[in-house]
Amino acid sequence: MSAAVREKTYEDICAEVGRFYARHVQLMDEGRAEEAADTFTEEASMVSPPKISTPIVGRAALAAGLRANADQLAADGIRYRRCYSTILVEVRDDGSVFARSYVQVIRTERDKGSYLHAMCVCEDVLVRTDGELKVAERVAIRDDDSI
Amino acid sequence: MSAAVREKTYEDICAEVGRFYARHVQLMDEGRAEEAADTFTEEASMVSPPKISTPIVGRAALAAGLRANADQLAADGIRYRRCYSTILVEVRDDGSVFARSYVQVIRTERDKGSYLHAMCVCEDVLVRTDGELKVAERVAIRDDDSI
Amino acid sequence: MSAAVREKTYEDICAEVGRFYARHVQLMDEGRAEEAADTFTEEASMVSPPKISTPIVGRAALAAGLRANADQLAADGIRYRRCYSTILVEVRDDGSVFARSYVQVIRTERDKGSYLHAMCVCEDVLVRTDGELKVAERVAIRDDDSI
Repeated sequence: MSAAVREKTYEDICAEVGRFYARHVQLMDEGRAEEAADTFTEEASMVSPPKISTPIVGRAALAAGLRANADQLAADGIRYRRCYSTILVEVRDDGSVFARSYVQVIRTERDKGSYLHAMCVCEDVLVRTDGELKVAERVAIRDDDSI
Repeated sequence: MSAAVREKTYEDICAEVGRFYARHVQLMDEGRAEEAADTFTEEASMVSPPKISTPIVGRAALAAGLRANADQLAADGIRYRRCYSTILVEVRDDGSVFARSYVQVIRTERDKGSYLHAMCVCEDVLVRTDGELKVAERVAIRDDDSI
Repeated sequence: MSAAVREKTYEDICAEVGRFYARHVQLMDEGRAEEAADTFTEEASMVSPPKISTPIVGRAALAAGLRANADQLAADGIRYRRCYSTILVEVRDDGSVFARSYVQVIRTERDKGSYLHAMCVCEDVLVRTDGELKVAERVAIRDDDSI
């Protein structure tokens, strides 16, 4: 039995999820909108109230939204970093992965330094497409919007 | 040799520790006091000065304290999130695990947004009970209380 | 095939990188300058503008800088914690590891509490020396210095 073909353990999947988020988040935060959109499934949905209270559905719509957002932030001299931690990973019977993460959103504005913009919880359903995890459903909730 | 029965490697134990904290912390932060108490051993002790300077000992006492705390926070419209990172994991000869983590405690208050409440270091001894890691001893120290 | 000798998988390397940073960062933050310097290679270089805009080269120079810095912080009653998250890990053909991390630098000052001092991205090339990962090259960039 080679390491390559042994069945994925829960530990392997956790590492894979960590890898997914690191790449996904860095693409999102750096305005690489088209590559970031490709980390969602074709039919993915995302909701993140209050800013996005009607779900965005489909990779094309997500890509357009990410591109517009990235261009606006670049023009305004603003950078967000989403610091993921405390990622709870559950593997479901259908092979999809439910991941629930704490996300500290740090905002940096030119000449104004960096500060905590929002504390969020991100709930994702990740599915494997052509061997790679992608976001199929995302619900991101701000703590200051939910207590 | 199947993946299921191979001996746990250090990497496996790190993944298990990450999994433990994600679940444990989310239960703690969301006021699920009885389930959170079950992530401590029967004889567990916890100390976290200055708020908890006399150790709380035993799962029953911990459960009572967690319940009272959760009820108070819910009444006050306050949410804490403990963002664990930089977790140092050491496996001891007796099979217990020493974990030393950085913990950014983020406080969100209704109508007041989210901010960094405290920077802490959490030192835990984790032991395996019925196959699951649980906290046997916790010492949490705030940086602003220790410099 | 024993667990000990199977070839390292990507997942194993991610766990190893996580372990490296946890130890490395805690040594750095706690002013254990000589041990921290030993987590860099003999020829390591580090640049972190604007504070360190000319690269520091070599473990001896790094050790001296870390020691001076640690002594100053201790005298001033200041503690920094570098909270690493969202670590992107790439294994290169030559066996070195490129790691790109989000780093929230939290500053605690006596009688002044804790706050976010800087949001940084840390890009490291890690190489294996005598079986252990060490930093060969570090570039750390503050977001408020790069937008």
